[in-house]
Amino acid sequence: MSLKVAVAGASGYAGGELLRLLSGHPEVEIGALTAGGSAGTALGLHHPHLVPLAGRILVETSAETLAGHDVVFLALPHGQSADISAQLGALDSTVTVIDCGADFRLIEAEAWVEFYGGKHAGHWPYGLPELPGQRDKLRGTNRVAVPGCYPTVSTLALLPAVQAGLVDPGQLVVVAVSGTSGAGKAPKAHLMGAEVMGSATAYGVGGAHRHTPEIEQNLGMVTDEPVSVSFTPVLVPMARGILATCSAPVTSGTTEESLRQAYEDAYGNEPFVHLLPEGQWPQTQATLGANTVQLQVTLDQRIGRAVIVAAMDNLTKGTAGAAVQCMNLAAGLDETLALPLVGVAP
Amino acid sequence: MSLKVAVAGASGYAGGELLRLLSGHPEVEIGALTAGGSAGTALGLHHPHLVPLAGRILVETSAETLAGHDVVFLALPHGQSADISAQLGALDSTVTVIDCGADFRLIEAEAWVEFYGGKHAGHWPYGLPELPGQRDKLRGTNRVAVPGCYPTVSTLALLPAVQAGLVDPGQLVVVAVSGTSGAGKAPKAHLMGAEVMGSATAYGVGGAHRHTPEIEQNLGMVTDEPVSVSFTPVLVPMARGILATCSAPVTSGTTEESLRQAYEDAYGNEPFVHLLPEGQWPQTQATLGANTVQLQVTLDQRIGRAVIVAAMDNLTKGTAGAAVQCMNLAAGLDETLALPLVGVAP
Amino acid sequence: MSLKVAVAGASGYAGGELLRLLSGHPEVEIGALTAGGSAGTALGLHHPHLVPLAGRILVETSAETLAGHDVVFLALPHGQSADISAQLGALDSTVTVIDCGADFRLIEAEAWVEFYGGKHAGHWPYGLPELPGQRDKLRGTNRVAVPGCYPTVSTLALLPAVQAGLVDPGQLVVVAVSGTSGAGKAPKAHLMGAEVMGSATAYGVGGAHRHTPEIEQNLGMVTDEPVSVSFTPVLVPMARGILATCSAPVTSGTTEESLRQAYEDAYGNEPFVHLLPEGQWPQTQATLGANTVQLQVTLDQRIGRAVIVAAMDNLTKGTAGAAVQCMNLAAGLDETLALPLVGVAP
Amino acid sequence: MSLKVAVAGASGYAGGELLRLLSGHPEVEIGALTAGGSAGTALGLHHPHLVPLAGRILVETSAETLAGHDVVFLALPHGQSADISAQLGALDSTVTVIDCGADFRLIEAEAWVEFYGGKHAGHWPYGLPELPGQRDKLRGTNRVAVPGCYPTVSTLALLPAVQAGLVDPGQLVVVAVSGTSGAGKAPKAHLMGAEVMGSATAYGVGGAHRHTPEIEQNLGMVTDEPVSVSFTPVLVPMARGILATCSAPVTSGTTEESLRQAYEDAYGNEPFVHLLPEGQWPQTQATLGANTVQLQVTLDQRIGRAVIVAAMDNLTKGTAGAAVQCMNLAAGLDETLALPLVGVAP
Repeated sequence: MSLKVAVAGASGYAGGELLRLLSGHPEVEIGALTAGGSAGTALGLHHPHLVPLAGRILVETSAETLAGHDVVFLALPHGQSADISAQLGALDSTVTVIDCGADFRLIEAEAWVEFYGGKHAGHWPYGLPELPGQRDKLRGTNRVAVPGCYPTVSTLALLPAVQAGLVDPGQLVVVAVSGTSGAGKAPKAHLMGAEVMGSATAYGVGGAHRHTPEIEQNLGMVTDEPVSVSFTPVLVPMARGILATCSAPVTSGTTEESLRQAYEDAYGNEPFVHLLPEGQWPQTQATLGANTVQLQVTLDQRIGRAVIVAAMDNLTKGTAGAAVQCMNLAAGLDETLALPLVGVAP
Repeated sequence: MSLKVAVAGASGYAGGELLRLLSGHPEVEIGALTAGGSAGTALGLHHPHLVPLAGRILVETSAETLAGHDVVFLALPHGQSADISAQLGALDSTVTVIDCGADFRLIEAEAWVEFYGGKHAGHWPYGLPELPGQRDKLRGTNRVAVPGCYPTVSTLALLPAVQAGLVDPGQLVVVAVSGTSGAGKAPKAHLMGAEVMGSATAYGVGGAHRHTPEIEQNLGMVTDEPVSVSFTPVLVPMARGILATCSAPVTSGTTEESLRQAYEDAYGNEPFVHLLPEGQWPQTQATLGANTVQLQVTLDQRIGRAVIVAAMDNLTKGTAGAAVQCMNLAAGLDETLALPLVGVAP
Repeated sequence: MSLKVAVAGASGYAGGELLRLLSGHPEVEIGALTAGGSAGTALGLHHPHLVPLAGRILVETSAETLAGHDVVFLALPHGQSADISAQLGALDSTVTVIDCGADFRLIEAEAWVEFYGGKHAGHWPYGLPELPGQRDKLRGTNRVAVPGCYPTVSTLALLPAVQAGLVDPGQLVVVAVSGTSGAGKAPKAHLMGAEVMGSATAYGVGGAHRHTPEIEQNLGMVTDEPVSVSFTPVLVPMARGILATCSAPVTSGTTEESLRQAYEDAYGNEPFVHLLPEGQWPQTQATLGANTVQLQVTLDQRIGRAVIVAAMDNLTKGTAGAAVQCMNLAAGLDETLALPLVGVAP
Repeated sequence: MSLKVAVAGASGYAGGELLRLLSGHPEVEIGALTAGGSAGTALGLHHPHLVPLAGRILVETSAETLAGHDVVFLALPHGQSADISAQLGALDSTVTVIDCGADFRLIEAEAWVEFYGGKHAGHWPYGLPELPGQRDKLRGTNRVAVPGCYPTVSTLALLPAVQAGLVDPGQLVVVAVSGTSGAGKAPKAHLMGAEVMGSATAYGVGGAHRHTPEIEQNLGMVTDEPVSVSFTPVLVPMARGILATCSAPVTSGTTEESLRQAYEDAYGNEPFVHLLPEGQWPQTQATLGANTVQLQVTLDQRIGRAVIVAAMDNLTKGTAGAAVQCMNLAAGLDETLALPLVGVAP
């Protein structure tokens, strides 16, 4: 099998990471690479690391340039996916569309309106195969909404404890430090090198970050109790990587052993989620460029609170790796094809 | 007035920062600089930034080399302060000793034994003038226990809300990202440049960090309710700086306005604590080398949780700046003397 | 004496560093702070580290807003100084203007046209007091062209060897690594945090950088032989600091001793230039926020080449510190007033 | 074919990078992983990024534990390779030994004694296939001396110009900035995170670095004229990557075109050396984790000097990638097998 794939938004960080992974995929032929303002320039100007594709010329993002591929990845600025995918679907009824944007992630229209504003475009199968039952829904699908980076790592960190009823899902606290590539490649004053090096800063504090309802939506699927998350993202001086520190009060009877067992049960067979040996805590460096999440869990006995720490590369498992994982499932391929398990460290 | 001061542990990071500040202090004459294994070498080899003191030779740390000064700062590895200060006190009854170590911070012997082990050395006046009533206890004292860096920033972040009864002190969560200088200068594998650059990692997770009881001790002074803190420190790739994200469920009736008012009331007259204008969030870079803590507070209305973020330089207000601030108080000088309000940014 | 000073371009990096230094200057009263697009906003939004000035409102940059001050510092984007200073001079005949831009640095109109293009505005007294004879020219002047950051560090590194005839000035090679703040605060794609962290890249290679003729102009003042410099700047992942590695073939008879002696002779009495003890090599961290240049020199005996390495903070001695140093000279104050000798490290 | 390989020194950075590459090699079965002080511990403790090998237990490095493999990689501290390879060769006459250390790189015993001291162990086929004629010498060999990281990037940067007689090989200047992983994983004070972040510093200045004679040896193979290199390495705040700025006076008649042509001729068919399009300069980030060198060349017309800038990952093409490339050649496999062309950026 050879899938002809297009990448819309190829000049951005998500687009670059998609192409890094796809260029090593044995069942993929890379077709159109599209962009907005950068159309007409060579890919190598934007992504000098993509040596074998450096001479490829970017074309305009449009339904016409994207039609005729087996799979189209959308790695576009927020809010563009709904329109382009509607136009593309009208032109090409057999294409599989995998959207790295937020447009189709939320199920509830009210949550969309509250956090994003404007009209809710609907929702597509959610690209987190590690959610209970979700893997089967992704097999053979032709539409995928790839999860946000923070929701992926936060959900995977909290899921087993919430699902097993070991913590109170109404008192979840997540503080996630992140590299700055997650904010995209468009030049912004607060993301300049001199601003971020040697500095840490929180943003979207107090529940303002748009990834909050997505985390709650995911965890709400495995519990009947109300879920509420206090989520604070913190920018730190690194290009890639997220480290999420997640905690919640434990329910009566929860022990260190029952907690750990819940994580072993949940992830023992997951190829991309690794519970570390006891006593070893995750570091983002170990996941750089890999499609893995590394986890550790403990119980603060003194105060009765479970603490779970998870590390992940925001561009790989947090975006482009998840997208390729979903493409593999959608196309009936081995789910792990072309996805690195090994990070680049130090 | 001219105070003759000695610094024990002058070759380390806390010692270096003390000397940076003291070298610009108009009422200070710098006397003995002592060290352990580095005795006999020039200070400039260890701290090339201390240009005017570069040729000073380090002498052995001992009660004899430290006696005869008006003020002695102890910036020693954990556990050495109790012995050396006892010997020094026996030799020199008029000396003021300001300890940057942990030995004399905790009041309860049981907390000491649980978190540090070994014998509790006792407790000295705690060097956080911003605690209610504490400033007066530091005026004229001849012994000071300088707070830990995490306790300083966490306490100042949570104090007004706890004191005013606006949050539940039994459900406090603190996740604090820190530069690596806080871990000291002794070579360790996990603190090597190649390990920490491009990586974030949590440590002391689950209540294991020794600064936990110190935070609880401080906040317990302003409330009658039980205080419990879930504290997780996270190392991130920067040399200096701590950003603490602190949160707690609000009590009934707490509003965004009452929260903010509590912080304005508490810190309106504090020279080193700055509540930022609404909407502006702290960044550690703005406090680099300054003796300031920058704060912002908000209420996550959706879930009823107060979130406070605080930035501070762990070596300045977190250690050496606080020590000089306490010396100023102890010696009857202007509390702010020789302490920068302005950070070095970007 | 109290000098009323204005800063034009107060929202940029050079403006911020000027204000950091000026806010601690005992003979300065800070007057108008001006900006372009940021006029009308509070300084604290742009420079949260400038706590005591955070509430000051930026006004439009114009001759009118700048007139009426004793000293006006221009920290403007390239090419704006000539016009504004001409207008200001017409309005206010007694003002001292200190220009941090390039407009008045080059003496030769041809060099200006070749490297900058457009009309040469003329030249002002060059603000490098360490150049032989230059200090006297700066005393009492009312116009100063502050040197570029690379020319300052490169000139000071090479000057003694060139002046003493110990190296061939026609074969100078300078490779200078720099933090990214030197490129300014305006958002640019290649200066984004995710681009610069974890990466090093050269720019302006092959003699294209505009600081090249300025280095040659400086060194040409101390030798009759032709001077030519191969200059390559390299961006590395730090916010501040320049480390210049400079080398040249030695002339016949040059020894390690004669080289070192030339540097000791040249800089023995200079307050801001520090030749390190033999065997100790400069690191930029030691100069962070200080107005110092740290130097080391050696002779590669095997190949007959002198190698000099110099470290400096591009924003302090490289820009704003030099400007204040020149103001001190121009106003008849102690040259070192309000200028830190001690850096902030680590 | 399946090669059984062992890695001696598996807990270090070179060992970790070898295992990252070898774990994806289709013709390799990973055998013994050996270490010194870390023997008996799990690999995952040292290299959490090597997820599939995390549970493998390190054994003692000895001829006995290494014997019986098809290929043995030595990634040992300097000076241990000669002994262990002699013992291994005595035990196992068919093993291929690929040494990442310096022991067998230099041909001239005098150069060895001058720069390394002690007895010269001899020399093995030099593992830089891009040197003229060298690829054929590596095919089928059973001993390889993998080049040093600085010599690889400096040689590849200067080779075409020297070989074509376009520059004076007696006046070569190389200033190479490097990430700190090149200095290894053993804890050292000057390599601690707080020391290297935010700082740049030169070392081994004045011809003292041991890689100097290796660069001269390589370039001496393609010219009859005397070769002399002024080499200065500079540590900058990144974990991986080298950017070498190389320059030399051009010979009479050299033009921008002839220079560029020489590089196109030399590297047009090399899989791992990429001359960038005119005007685009290398950045180390683009080579992270890849086995590529990216190059750009220009002629500074004004002063008659060629300037070549080259970027490379010190651990991949600079060490472990080169070692695997040589194994592929030695074993008769496709030279590019399991070697990434695409870096991980940003």
